[in-house]
Amino acid sequence: MPEHQNHNSNGSTVWRRVTDFHPRKSLRTWLIGRPLQTADAPHQTISKKVGLAVFASDALSSTAYAPQELMGVLAAAGTIAFGYAFPLALGIIALLAILTLSYEQTIHAYPGGGGAYIVSRDNLGEIPAQVAAAALLLDYVLTVAVSISSGVAQIISAYENLFEWRVEIAVGLVIVVMLINLRGVKEAGTAFAIPTYFFVIMMYLTVIVGLARFFGGSLGIVANPPELHITATLQPVTWFLILRAFSNGTTALTGVEAISNGIPAFKEPKSRNAGITLLAMSAILGSLLLAIVYLSTHIQAVPSETETVISQLARTVFGARNLFYLGVLSSTTVILVMAANTSFAGFPRLSAITAQDGFLPRQLTYRGSRLVYSRGIVVLALVASLLIVLFQASVTRLIPLYAIGVFLSFTLSQAGMARRWWKIGHLPPDVEVKERGSVLHYEESWQLKMFLNGLGAFLTAVVTIVFSVTKFVEGAYIVILLIPLLVFIFSRIHRHYQSLAKGLSLDRFGAPPPISRHRVIMPLSSVHRGTIAAMRYARTLSDDITAVHVSIDRDEAIRVQAKWEEWGEGYRLVILESPYRLFLEPLLSYIEEIAASRQPNEIITIVVPQFVPRNWWANALHTQTALTLRWALLFRKNIVVTDVPYQVEA
Amino acid sequence: MPEHQNHNSNGSTVWRRVTDFHPRKSLRTWLIGRPLQTADAPHQTISKKVGLAVFASDALSSTAYAPQELMGVLAAAGTIAFGYAFPLALGIIALLAILTLSYEQTIHAYPGGGGAYIVSRDNLGEIPAQVAAAALLLDYVLTVAVSISSGVAQIISAYENLFEWRVEIAVGLVIVVMLINLRGVKEAGTAFAIPTYFFVIMMYLTVIVGLARFFGGSLGIVANPPELHITATLQPVTWFLILRAFSNGTTALTGVEAISNGIPAFKEPKSRNAGITLLAMSAILGSLLLAIVYLSTHIQAVPSETETVISQLARTVFGARNLFYLGVLSSTTVILVMAANTSFAGFPRLSAITAQDGFLPRQLTYRGSRLVYSRGIVVLALVASLLIVLFQASVTRLIPLYAIGVFLSFTLSQAGMARRWWKIGHLPPDVEVKERGSVLHYEESWQLKMFLNGLGAFLTAVVTIVFSVTKFVEGAYIVILLIPLLVFIFSRIHRHYQSLAKGLSLDRFGAPPPISRHRVIMPLSSVHRGTIAAMRYARTLSDDITAVHVSIDRDEAIRVQAKWEEWGEGYRLVILESPYRLFLEPLLSYIEEIAASRQPNEIITIVVPQFVPRNWWANALHTQTALTLRWALLFRKNIVVTDVPYQVEA
Repeated sequence: MPEHQNHNSNGSTVWRRVTDFHPRKSLRTWLIGRPLQTADAPHQTISKKVGLAVFASDALSSTAYAPQELMGVLAAAGTIAFGYAFPLALGIIALLAILTLSYEQTIHAYPGGGGAYIVSRDNLGEIPAQVAAAALLLDYVLTVAVSISSGVAQIISAYENLFEWRVEIAVGLVIVVMLINLRGVKEAGTAFAIPTYFFVIMMYLTVIVGLARFFGGSLGIVANPPELHITATLQPVTWFLILRAFSNGTTALTGVEAISNGIPAFKEPKSRNAGITLLAMSAILGSLLLAIVYLSTHIQAVPSETETVISQLARTVFGARNLFYLGVLSSTTVILVMAANTSFAGFPRLSAITAQDGFLPRQLTYRGSRLVYSRGIVVLALVASLLIVLFQASVTRLIPLYAIGVFLSFTLSQAGMARRWWKIGHLPPDVEVKERGSVLHYEESWQLKMFLNGLGAFLTAVVTIVFSVTKFVEGAYIVILLIPLLVFIFSRIHRHYQSLAKGLSLDRFGAPPPISRHRVIMPLSSVHRGTIAAMRYARTLSDDITAVHVSIDRDEAIRVQAKWEEWGEGYRLVILESPYRLFLEPLLSYIEEIAASRQPNEIITIVVPQFVPRNWWANALHTQTALTLRWALLFRKNIVVTDVPYQVEA
Repeated sequence: MPEHQNHNSNGSTVWRRVTDFHPRKSLRTWLIGRPLQTADAPHQTISKKVGLAVFASDALSSTAYAPQELMGVLAAAGTIAFGYAFPLALGIIALLAILTLSYEQTIHAYPGGGGAYIVSRDNLGEIPAQVAAAALLLDYVLTVAVSISSGVAQIISAYENLFEWRVEIAVGLVIVVMLINLRGVKEAGTAFAIPTYFFVIMMYLTVIVGLARFFGGSLGIVANPPELHITATLQPVTWFLILRAFSNGTTALTGVEAISNGIPAFKEPKSRNAGITLLAMSAILGSLLLAIVYLSTHIQAVPSETETVISQLARTVFGARNLFYLGVLSSTTVILVMAANTSFAGFPRLSAITAQDGFLPRQLTYRGSRLVYSRGIVVLALVASLLIVLFQASVTRLIPLYAIGVFLSFTLSQAGMARRWWKIGHLPPDVEVKERGSVLHYEESWQLKMFLNGLGAFLTAVVTIVFSVTKFVEGAYIVILLIPLLVFIFSRIHRHYQSLAKGLSLDRFGAPPPISRHRVIMPLSSVHRGTIAAMRYARTLSDDITAVHVSIDRDEAIRVQAKWEEWGEGYRLVILESPYRLFLEPLLSYIEEIAASRQPNEIITIVVPQFVPRNWWANALHTQTALTLRWALLFRKNIVVTDVPYQVEA
């Protein structure tokens, strides 16, 4: 154990030593790996190819459910309404293009990571930043619930009889992803590359073969489609219906922001590499989305809880439930499960940043044995599992809650960027302003850049409103209520930490005068070896010791008094008769009385003799006086409760 | 506040005072009444008439289910087997007669209360006493579950559509009975007299009218009887079937022992009055049982979960669901609910006696604000409610568990009495032996009395065995497993209290030498006002103070060191670098190291600065170091953990 010693001017000695601690093997180390030292923190960076695999799974995987949920709304007006699907998909692609360009700018402006929270905090202020944090945290949870549920839906499409186990399978998958993430990022990165590319290849294979057969005229419609559940009377095609379908389709854009959070993970030049990865991701996402919607509507796929549209598409394109079909479904399942991983990276990081700023419990900033924010990971897994159970792993029921948070955070992030360009445009050319997340200096054509981010902000704001209105009754109201509630909680927590820091600050703090008198009160129910041990301890504190016996039973009081006369070493014993057989109240009122007559600088210690039985369960057989007293006296000044444990031997 | 002061030879002063405490009104006082002083304990005694009402409800109410459960078993062999019902009822009456005579003797031998536990303890030893206690406690719980469930079955007979709410109604009734009992016995006594007599009158009216109409030839069979659920193939009438029916019928005898527990409640001459009451109760019970079985089989009543036999009997006798019918059903319901009350008197008293002897947690001996053993009452209500929920308030499903405990305790009690007569027979004429529960002196014709109790013991033992065998698969095995398990738990608890008493005893205890050195270790995460307050306290303990900072973050350690140099008053600061970011382990290993190098009579106090936020919920935002440390160090000798609370002002 290396040890260093400092002496300093004030006379105080400072010793430094490194703790000699060797982690032992246990179930825990087997599950998540042996503990890592802080110095082991990985500084490794990733290439564009791995970056795409790590950050794109969330966005790309949404092609597995977004087309189906879009078509599901149109189905209410009959399959004839599927004609609106492709134009809607084009609109979504346009939105994707604007968003991609907007985020390109964010990536270059915030090379240290430009999540919506940071951008809002630096440019819009505290409340918008908290709104962004609340929206994002909620959506991270929903991403896990939706992706995992959709992944399970793919499994069910292939193996129907697993339908009744869907909730259990989904929760099991959440636990697996949680464990992977508790092990840490490095392993997770590698584990993700292969499945992501496998998915991309399988999807392109499906749409290329599908389009070839379609234009060759050999692609028919879905054989034996699942039953279409529609209301008895067909709904007319209204603007509301179309906007609702559009809202569902925009869930495809969730995850686009992931790269902007993870810029520091890329190899140098970080911003450039991250930017190129974003473009690649958007291109793949856009092309797949368009092709899937086009093909799915033409083969007359039926949105259903028992077989996914992807499953219907794959078996129609490949002619049967063959190896290719299984390849598509399994890769889709895997990427959906992996998509949940993006949240498992994002949620703990964001909650740690928010906690660091004092809006969430500080415990979330603590990095666990594997150098990850393990508490955030566990919280995410718990809340997502709860959602899965509540919504019975149904993507259709979860979707109305989803994406509002993402789009709200898009809006705030892009609005923040626009504000940033305005600030930049008004800087003198040679001035550099350092903000917490980025450095500002004048740039050419800031107006155009401001317009681009402003357009992104405007469009995503419109989508947020459309989403909130069209999905309100089906579940969006939950999110709309939760976000302000979370912001309220954040601000209460923040206020607590601030007032605490003020209340504990040593600035302009006059050290209190030393304690002039120390009194000891020792409650006792009987006189035994534990009492003697406590008294022996009490005597090192003070000579002013009063033993107090609260008497419920007169005979017991007589025994206590007799024993005290023998063992009490001359100290005072007060017997408080308690006609109502209460224990705590008479003792507290006695302590209050003593406390009231006390001088300033006088302190009272309540020394509670506590015997410690050798068996833990035996504690249930005794009243835990010290615990109760401590709680009751916690808010009283200059009263300290000490329990002196006496380890019973026998 | 009256205060007395004593000085005694040893120089210690003893003050006595009565606590000045005025109970406040609250929801609690509204529900169960204002607290009573110990001196208010009721010393009031009850007459034979009230005594019959208080103690007989358990026994008499069993006429509501015992005939039905007896017939339910015979029904498996077809209604033709109902012919066996009356002879079986006669057998049960014979058993009742023997039991009554046996208990008459117990009542006169134990004027202070002769429950099976006390009689077994004094005459058979500790293990039989514990078996009796376990059996009785279990059966008290089952009495509540069975009586309440049967009461709800009567309600359902009249109001069919309440069937799906039966569990909720049953649990609600348990809560009502619990609250009545938490108020205390006095009110309970009065409340019981009227319904018990109402029930007795209604039942006699039913059987007298029924018998008159039967012998007059105008009594037909049940109109629209409920469906009879029997197995596809009729079972043959075997000895096993008949014994099983007999076992079910003997549940009518549960509650016969109630008076023997409650002798002290009677007016003088207690034993005589209690004995007469027992005779009256047995006479009523026997005659009603016989008449109900006779009539029920002749009107071809059908045992059913949806309509009780009592309901079928009443509407057949009175010709319709008229006022008389409702009178019978409502009085039956009320007496069944009241029967649960016998357990609410018996269970808490027995558990308090057992706890007093050290076989159950001592907390059960504590009398609550209304001078009743409130903890026992609440435990009984909880366990009975659990049973009702598990068995869905079905009497037929609960019955196989019921009555084994009662008959086992009958056997032990009567065997104990027989043993007591044997002891009495071998005493010299002028010797008086005092046992814990009774006084022994020679009596004439002890052989006859011994024979009578012995016969009671033998017959109830046979019933216990018959019951266990015939009901084993249907649920009796649960009780047969639970009784030894409970006895095991009792003996573990007893051993704990005994070894604790030995380990704490001051007999032959050499007082330890005073503490020669006191060291203080003060863990701190940062230096703030709370730290200063803790240090101010620590200085009253010792001058040997070491502050310890477990460093997870290097920057934080530097800040702590700088602040300590300013505020640390020259005391030592040890910085423990924790490469694995653990907090507790480095601190513990440091404390261990210090503790290892310590001299005999040296004590270490860990002073933990703890700031107390003004909002209770804010505690969730901070790590509760003191709590964790206290648990971790509880078993270490001569280490005391003290948290010094600092109430934050801001």
